[in-house]
Amino acid sequence: MQVAFSAEEISRMVGSTASRGATTENIRGLAALTDATTGDLTFLGNAKYKTQVAGTRASLVLLPVGHAGEPSPGQLYVFVENPSVALAQICARLEHALWPKPVAGVHPSASVAPDARIAATATIGPLCVVESGVNIGERVHLQAQVFVGRNASVGEDSWLMPGVVVSAECELGRRVRLQPGVIVGSDGFGYEFSKGRHEKIPQVGIVRIGDDVEIGANSTIDRARFSLTTIGDGTKIDNLVQIGHNVVIGRHCLLCAQIGIAGSSTLEDYVVLGGQAGVAGHIRIGKGTKAGGRAGVTCDLAPGSFVNGTPAIPYMLERRVAVLQPRLPELFKRVGALEEQLLDAKKTSS
Amino acid sequence: MQVAFSAEEISRMVGSTASRGATTENIRGLAALTDATTGDLTFLGNAKYKTQVAGTRASLVLLPVGHAGEPSPGQLYVFVENPSVALAQICARLEHALWPKPVAGVHPSASVAPDARIAATATIGPLCVVESGVNIGERVHLQAQVFVGRNASVGEDSWLMPGVVVSAECELGRRVRLQPGVIVGSDGFGYEFSKGRHEKIPQVGIVRIGDDVEIGANSTIDRARFSLTTIGDGTKIDNLVQIGHNVVIGRHCLLCAQIGIAGSSTLEDYVVLGGQAGVAGHIRIGKGTKAGGRAGVTCDLAPGSFVNGTPAIPYMLERRVAVLQPRLPELFKRVGALEEQLLDAKKTSS
Amino acid sequence: MQVAFSAEEISRMVGSTASRGATTENIRGLAALTDATTGDLTFLGNAKYKTQVAGTRASLVLLPVGHAGEPSPGQLYVFVENPSVALAQICARLEHALWPKPVAGVHPSASVAPDARIAATATIGPLCVVESGVNIGERVHLQAQVFVGRNASVGEDSWLMPGVVVSAECELGRRVRLQPGVIVGSDGFGYEFSKGRHEKIPQVGIVRIGDDVEIGANSTIDRARFSLTTIGDGTKIDNLVQIGHNVVIGRHCLLCAQIGIAGSSTLEDYVVLGGQAGVAGHIRIGKGTKAGGRAGVTCDLAPGSFVNGTPAIPYMLERRVAVLQPRLPELFKRVGALEEQLLDAKKTSS
Repeated sequence: MQVAFSAEEISRMVGSTASRGATTENIRGLAALTDATTGDLTFLGNAKYKTQVAGTRASLVLLPVGHAGEPSPGQLYVFVENPSVALAQICARLEHALWPKPVAGVHPSASVAPDARIAATATIGPLCVVESGVNIGERVHLQAQVFVGRNASVGEDSWLMPGVVVSAECELGRRVRLQPGVIVGSDGFGYEFSKGRHEKIPQVGIVRIGDDVEIGANSTIDRARFSLTTIGDGTKIDNLVQIGHNVVIGRHCLLCAQIGIAGSSTLEDYVVLGGQAGVAGHIRIGKGTKAGGRAGVTCDLAPGSFVNGTPAIPYMLERRVAVLQPRLPELFKRVGALEEQLLDAKKTSS
Repeated sequence: MQVAFSAEEISRMVGSTASRGATTENIRGLAALTDATTGDLTFLGNAKYKTQVAGTRASLVLLPVGHAGEPSPGQLYVFVENPSVALAQICARLEHALWPKPVAGVHPSASVAPDARIAATATIGPLCVVESGVNIGERVHLQAQVFVGRNASVGEDSWLMPGVVVSAECELGRRVRLQPGVIVGSDGFGYEFSKGRHEKIPQVGIVRIGDDVEIGANSTIDRARFSLTTIGDGTKIDNLVQIGHNVVIGRHCLLCAQIGIAGSSTLEDYVVLGGQAGVAGHIRIGKGTKAGGRAGVTCDLAPGSFVNGTPAIPYMLERRVAVLQPRLPELFKRVGALEEQLLDAKKTSS
Repeated sequence: MQVAFSAEEISRMVGSTASRGATTENIRGLAALTDATTGDLTFLGNAKYKTQVAGTRASLVLLPVGHAGEPSPGQLYVFVENPSVALAQICARLEHALWPKPVAGVHPSASVAPDARIAATATIGPLCVVESGVNIGERVHLQAQVFVGRNASVGEDSWLMPGVVVSAECELGRRVRLQPGVIVGSDGFGYEFSKGRHEKIPQVGIVRIGDDVEIGANSTIDRARFSLTTIGDGTKIDNLVQIGHNVVIGRHCLLCAQIGIAGSSTLEDYVVLGGQAGVAGHIRIGKGTKAGGRAGVTCDLAPGSFVNGTPAIPYMLERRVAVLQPRLPELFKRVGALEEQLLDAKKTSS
């Protein structure tokens, strides 16, 4: 990161009024207590790491008010109410440095259809393609090499990173953030088997994405067979996730990396699925359900369910099963021993 | 979708001669019986949803000849032999509206090698790269930002969507459809371990894809170490699927999303694998084999196999095991009880 | 492959001094003993395929010195110390034909910031984007449609294939090879739940990739929340792999296709993970650990571990459990029978 802040700037950012020690270093990096070195800022976010503070080599340490101990030479302690919150404030500032506000306008290398509607405050970066009938809202940022297909729309303040594809007719809400390589509106996987061949069922629906949705790198969202594939407001999706056609995902869900949701399934609001989980087609997962990493959900789940395993079962039960599983060889031996004992007993008694 | 048809146009499309009721709405969307609203077309594709017909708010309902009941005011019933077939006819028409026939020619922003052979009826869209020695067949559509590497060939009527990469020397058949972000011809994963390092084994084979193959968004097909990685005619592959080097996939297979096929394995014709399944390297899966979602196939399978689970076992057996699995805690208790009883019995008898 | 070598050229490449038979064919392909046909070269790499040599239709066969038997008419046997090594030498030559040395310079269709530092020997291919402050080393090859973001750096002799995205500030070592569609530096998946919404935690760290790293097609490597996501020297990663934020991967690891490594986990040097494996967040996997395909690692592993299954347990134990698993229905029956016998015994004795 080519960003540097003076110790005074940091103190001002976090609204600190108390400090101990001094540093002349500019702060050029952030690191954990044990990893930090000269020029780094670090913080005590969790009391259990308290003993690591004395040994850190960071130039600036964010500490809770009242933390005892003395900084090393050339080290500054900055005291705040909540070091984690202070860190978030600094990160937000760093983010603005990392991703400076783009300059509005269409890059001369972009290929934009004459009838596309591009808001005056939007940025169309280099080598983007914007097809006919597209609607690009205020302050939208198509970063570079983005494709937006015929009649698609992108809501205001959205940011589409390099290599994103938004296919024809699809609709993105406001403040949508698509990480690099995301595909929105690929065809659903639908064929009818006839005379020894798989004949394609046309996929003529669209994808509609709500406000404040974020989708991770190289994830794919299929258009509906007809009607809609929907991602609700505030839902966050990680990398390499597959969402099948006609899936409905509610609001404020969290889907970790490499999840697959098969066609026509519904996730109600506030569902959280762990990495590499899978959801079968045509099922409904109730509001607030949680599933562990790798869970394979194969049937409807009531609201508030908490499941794990493949096929997914209640979480606590699955944990008990997982502990017993490796003891199967022992169990087989025990049952064999019982059988022998009974056989011996019979022989004896007969 | 910016497409609208009058009720009369719909009736003509599906060849209907009988109707009941009337609507003045243009049909602007398709939706399920329970989701449809004014301006939508819906249909009764399965008798079990019969009771939903009376309540639908669609402006036009496709119904089987002989269906009883009266349309709501402003609603038109259109009678046909088979509403599902009628719907497919309408979808095909919508598809033509969604994806209008591209205009032949090379977009001025594309980068095309002078010695590439581009058929006169082909379309090379904006910001595509076509390298030296490439062969592009009649009516091929490279939509936008597609890459076709040195000496590769793309058969007639194929459609490569935005962001597709076809690497050097690879060969695509006719009517191949690659969804956005597909990578054909990445290097196989091959290294030899020597002196503490993994030394790369050059991957100098190619990928050969047959006619009528479709590959889903962001899937990856590795080139062979040498010789061929092959996808047979008519095979359909979903999103985020990984095909390793020297894999041979037969004709008319179906591979659902997020499947991985490790190097040098063979799938014979008509194999169907569920989502997130995996196939180990160097094995052969017989003709017509079916594997459930998430199945992990680790050894050869005879033609016509039907398997599930990891490692994959016969489907019906796996279903029985899956039902018993959650009862392991109970089984351990029962065995413990038996052991105690026998111990007691011994004490008593001694 | 449009490459042809005469039999004499092949003999010279592999340093052979002994041969039997003769061919006038130019060698245009490589294939296995049983697949090869006229114009192909084949080899005997493993003694167990010895009997296949007599039947091969290849025009040229690489054989170990001392191999008996006579070539067919029009077939040439070429004798070498080690046919596998000889084949690797030929593959290396073919690779140079497949991927000719790129011509240095910036393609006129590329979009390169005026202040980017591009080494004179580097090649910036068509339709690439190189942002401000970027550092491109000697002989680097950005093949086509590659994106390199603000202040990122790419070490000498690296090769970034079509569609690769290297996001702002990320650092690539020397001789790094990124297959098509790789995303380096997407945001980590981090949110804080507050007032019913997931609020984004800014991801302001970077990705640092060592020397001699190769990453497979469409894989994604997230930037750190702050500080670093690290891939060590010599590590090789296959296609569609997900590496979470703040992950540390050691040197000379092998990660097969579709693996996911959750945030903040550490893999020490020489770790090998099979395809579709998963590693939970915040754990440490000791040096030289091996995990089978599909393994789900959920806790710290000591150096030299060898595990399998989900959750991962020692490999040999998992193999025993996997064999017993399908016998669960039998075990339940046996326990039921024991219970009945004991009940009967009690009845009899009472």
